[in-house]
Amino acid sequence: MNTVLIFRVLSVLLLLIAGFMVAPIIVALFYAEYEMIGAFLVPIAVVVPIAVLYLFVTRRRRGGLSTKSGFLLVTMSWLAAAATGSVPFLVSGWIPSVTDAFFETMSGFTTTGATILTDIEALPASLLFWRSLTHWLGGMGIIVLTVAILPLLGVGGYQIMKAEAPGPSVDRLTPKITQTAKLLWFIYLGLTVLETALLMVGGLSLYDALTHTFGTLATGGFSPKAASVGHYTSPFVQIVVTVFMLAAGVNFILYYRLLLGRVRVIARNTEVKVYFAVFVAATVAIASALQHGAVYGSVGESLRYAGFQAASILTTTGYATADFAQWPAAAQVLLFALMFVGGSAGSTGGGIKVVRVVTLVKQGFNEMRYLVHQHGVFAIRLNGQVIRKDVVYSIAGFVFLYLLLLVITSIVVATGGNDIVTSFTTALATLGNIGPGFGRIGPVENYAFFHDHIKWYLSFIMMVGRLEIYTVLVLVTPAFWRE
Amino acid sequence: MNTVLIFRVLSVLLLLIAGFMVAPIIVALFYAEYEMIGAFLVPIAVVVPIAVLYLFVTRRRRGGLSTKSGFLLVTMSWLAAAATGSVPFLVSGWIPSVTDAFFETMSGFTTTGATILTDIEALPASLLFWRSLTHWLGGMGIIVLTVAILPLLGVGGYQIMKAEAPGPSVDRLTPKITQTAKLLWFIYLGLTVLETALLMVGGLSLYDALTHTFGTLATGGFSPKAASVGHYTSPFVQIVVTVFMLAAGVNFILYYRLLLGRVRVIARNTEVKVYFAVFVAATVAIASALQHGAVYGSVGESLRYAGFQAASILTTTGYATADFAQWPAAAQVLLFALMFVGGSAGSTGGGIKVVRVVTLVKQGFNEMRYLVHQHGVFAIRLNGQVIRKDVVYSIAGFVFLYLLLLVITSIVVATGGNDIVTSFTTALATLGNIGPGFGRIGPVENYAFFHDHIKWYLSFIMMVGRLEIYTVLVLVTPAFWRE
Repeated sequence: MNTVLIFRVLSVLLLLIAGFMVAPIIVALFYAEYEMIGAFLVPIAVVVPIAVLYLFVTRRRRGGLSTKSGFLLVTMSWLAAAATGSVPFLVSGWIPSVTDAFFETMSGFTTTGATILTDIEALPASLLFWRSLTHWLGGMGIIVLTVAILPLLGVGGYQIMKAEAPGPSVDRLTPKITQTAKLLWFIYLGLTVLETALLMVGGLSLYDALTHTFGTLATGGFSPKAASVGHYTSPFVQIVVTVFMLAAGVNFILYYRLLLGRVRVIARNTEVKVYFAVFVAATVAIASALQHGAVYGSVGESLRYAGFQAASILTTTGYATADFAQWPAAAQVLLFALMFVGGSAGSTGGGIKVVRVVTLVKQGFNEMRYLVHQHGVFAIRLNGQVIRKDVVYSIAGFVFLYLLLLVITSIVVATGGNDIVTSFTTALATLGNIGPGFGRIGPVENYAFFHDHIKWYLSFIMMVGRLEIYTVLVLVTPAFWRE
Repeated sequence: MNTVLIFRVLSVLLLLIAGFMVAPIIVALFYAEYEMIGAFLVPIAVVVPIAVLYLFVTRRRRGGLSTKSGFLLVTMSWLAAAATGSVPFLVSGWIPSVTDAFFETMSGFTTTGATILTDIEALPASLLFWRSLTHWLGGMGIIVLTVAILPLLGVGGYQIMKAEAPGPSVDRLTPKITQTAKLLWFIYLGLTVLETALLMVGGLSLYDALTHTFGTLATGGFSPKAASVGHYTSPFVQIVVTVFMLAAGVNFILYYRLLLGRVRVIARNTEVKVYFAVFVAATVAIASALQHGAVYGSVGESLRYAGFQAASILTTTGYATADFAQWPAAAQVLLFALMFVGGSAGSTGGGIKVVRVVTLVKQGFNEMRYLVHQHGVFAIRLNGQVIRKDVVYSIAGFVFLYLLLLVITSIVVATGGNDIVTSFTTALATLGNIGPGFGRIGPVENYAFFHDHIKWYLSFIMMVGRLEIYTVLVLVTPAFWRE
C-alpha cells in the first residue's frame, strides 16, 4: 500500500474542494451575506496549509498506485470530502449538530439528496449554493470513478465498461485517466451551461438556475426551494429538468461517442435503449393511474407530472413537482418499483443500474433455455457482444449484496421505531442515492427525525451505495489488510 | 412430448385426490354433516370414471418421460389438483365464486395458506378438514418434487440436491423416485402422527390436532379457527407447533440420514446450521423488540411469541399466535426481513430458500476476495463440498427472477388501489407461499377484498412460487414449444 501517494492524492482533492469553496464566498458577497464568509474561510484556512505542506514534504516520493490503494483512496476521498464540506454548515451554526452536518454533506457528495433541513429557505443563499455544489462535485467524481477507475478495479461488473471506455488500460493508467476525465468533465460542463441557460430562459435567476442544474446533472436532488422543482409551475422549466435528469442518467461515454459522430454505437447500446423504454413505460403507466384517479385536469398534465417523477426516481435524482405520496396507490407502487432500477452505468445516477438489471434478466431467461436444451450453449449479449461469465458472476454478487444491504438497512432504520414502508424505502432511497421515499421520508418530509445512530449508519450506506458497494466493503474484509 | 403418459400420471394423481376425499366424508359422517357428503361425492363421481377409463384405454402405451414432459406434468398436476379440489367448496355453496374456490384450493395445495374466507368458523367441519388436507397433500407433493424431480430437471440450483438425495439418477428414474418418495412420505407420516399425538396431549381434539398438524407440516397455515393457533393459549401447544413448523422447514433428506444414524452429514450441512442460526437470531431480536415495547409480561412470553412468529414466517407457514401487525415497528420489520429467506430446499417450506441465500452471500464475499487477489481462485463451498459454477449461476438467475416477479406482482396488486405495504407484502406472501403479510393482508385480515383479476393472478403466482418459478415459466417460453 502506497500510503504517501494516497495522502498526496487526497491533498490535491482537498485543495480542489477548498478552491471550489471560493464559489459560495462569491455568492455570499453578491447577496451581502458577509457573516457567512468566515464559515467558508475556516475550512480553507485549515485544509490549504496542511495539504500544501504535505505535498511539499513528500514531493520527491514516487511509485504507482496498487489496486488495494485504489480502493482505500476512493473511499477516503468521499469521507474527506464530506468531512471538509460539512465545516461551513457547522461553523455558520445553521446545522449545529456534527451528525446532521456530516449527513447533509455526505448526502450532497453522494448525490443522494436526502436532507435533514426542516426549513430550507431560511438558510443563507451562499450556504445553499455550497450544498448544491457538493452534488455537482460528487457527480463529477462519480463519472470519472465509474468510467475510468472502477473498470480497472473490477468492481461489480464494471469490467463491461472496459471495452466501452475510450481506452484506459492498466499499464498506462495515469495519462489515460486524465485524458478520459478531461473529456467527460468537458461534457458535464457543457450540459451544465446548457441547462443553466435553458432554465434562465424559463425565468429562473442565475442562482436558481445554477443550483437546480447542479442537483439535476448530478442526479442529486437538493433544491434551495422547500417545494423542490414544484416551486416552479412553468411547464417549460419542469420539462427542461425532466430532460436533463434523463440526460444525466445516461452513460457519459455515449455523449463522447456522439461527439465523434459514432451514432451506430449508441443505437446498438442495450442499456440506453432499455433505460428509455423503462422511462416511457413507467411514464405512461403512472400517467394512466393519475388520469384514472383524476388527479390532474388533462392528459398532458398527467404525462408531464408522471414523466417528471418517473425520471426523477429512475435516475435517482429525487426532485419532486408534486407530493407523490398523495397519488393513487398504483402510481406510488410504480415509483416504488422504479427505485429498484436506477440510472445507467457511467452516469451520475445511482441504484442497481439498468445494465445490471438487463444482464440478470437475460441470465434468468438463459436458465430457461438451458432447462429446455440441457446441453446447449447460451451466451448473454449486451451491445451485440458476448458478456464474459465472470462479469455476470460479478453482477450477480453485486445485486445480491445490494439486496442484503437493503434488508439490513431496513432493520437498522426500524430500530428507531419506524414502520415497514419508512424503513424499507429509507434503505432504497439511501443505498440507491435517491433521497425521498415513502412514509416518513416522503417527498414533502425529511430525514431530520431519525436518531443519530441511524443518521451515521445512513451516511455510511449512502457512501457504500454511491461507491458501488464493493469499493467500500472490501476494506472491511480481513483479506484486504493481510499482506 | 409424451402426452399420453402425462395424462396417465395425471389420472393417477386425480384418483389419489379422489381417494383422499373419502377422509372429509368420514368427518362429515362423524359430525353428522350429511348435506356435505354430496359435495365430496360430485368430484369423485366425475373424476374416477374418466381417470379409470383413460388408464384402461391407454394401458398398452409405454415410453419414457422427457424433461419437457416433466415440466408440463408438474405444472398440470398442481392445476388439476386445485381445479378438482375446489369442487367441494363450490358444490356445497360455501364458496360460491369459482375465482374464490380456485384461489382457496390453490392456496391449499401450494401450502400458502392465504384465505378468502371472512368467517372461517362458520364453515362445516368436513369442508375445513378438506381445506387443511389440501395443505398436507401439497406438502407431500412438494417433498417428492424438490428431492426427486427438480434435481433431474435442473431447476434453480436444485442440482445441489443430486449428491444429497439418496441416489436418483437420470437413467434409473422411476424405481429410484418411487423408493425415495416412499421413504420421505414415511418420515412425513411419522411426523404427522407425532405432532397430532402431542397436540392431543396438549388438549386438542383429534380433529383440531389433525387439521393443525396438516397446516404445520406442510408449512401451510390454514387453521379451522379464526384466531389461527392463537386460539390455543396453552404454551405447550404453541411450542409444539413452533417445533414442528421448524421441523417442516428442514430438508427431509436429513431425517432420512438421521434414521440411518449418519449424524455427521447433518453436522456438516451448511443450510441446516444457517437455518437454525437465522431462527435463533430472529427470535432473540424480535423478543427484545417485544420486551422493549412492553408487549408481553415476561421475557419467557416474549420469547415464546417471538419464536412462534419467527418460525412461522421463516418456514413460510403463516400461522399466528398474535396480531403481529400491532407489534413494535422493529419486530415487524424483522418479520418482513424473514419473508425474504424461506425454508430449506427439500422441505415443505417456500420462499427463496436458505441454501440459495447462503450461496449468494458467499458469492458476494467471494467477489471481494477477487478484488483483493485478482488472479486468485476462490470456490464456494457448501456442506464441505465445492459448488459448481453453473449451479451458482442457476441460483443467481432464480433469485433475480424471484425479485423481478416480486416487483411485477406488487404492480399488479397495486392496480386494485392497494398501498405499497399491502402490494409488496402480498407479492412476498404469495410468491413465497407464506400467506399473511402486512397492511390489508395482515395476520387478522384475509384476501377476500381483492378484485377477481388479482385473485387469479395471485393463484398463478402461488403456483409459480411453489414450483420454483422455472418449472412454470419455462412453459411460456417459445423455445419450449419449438421442436
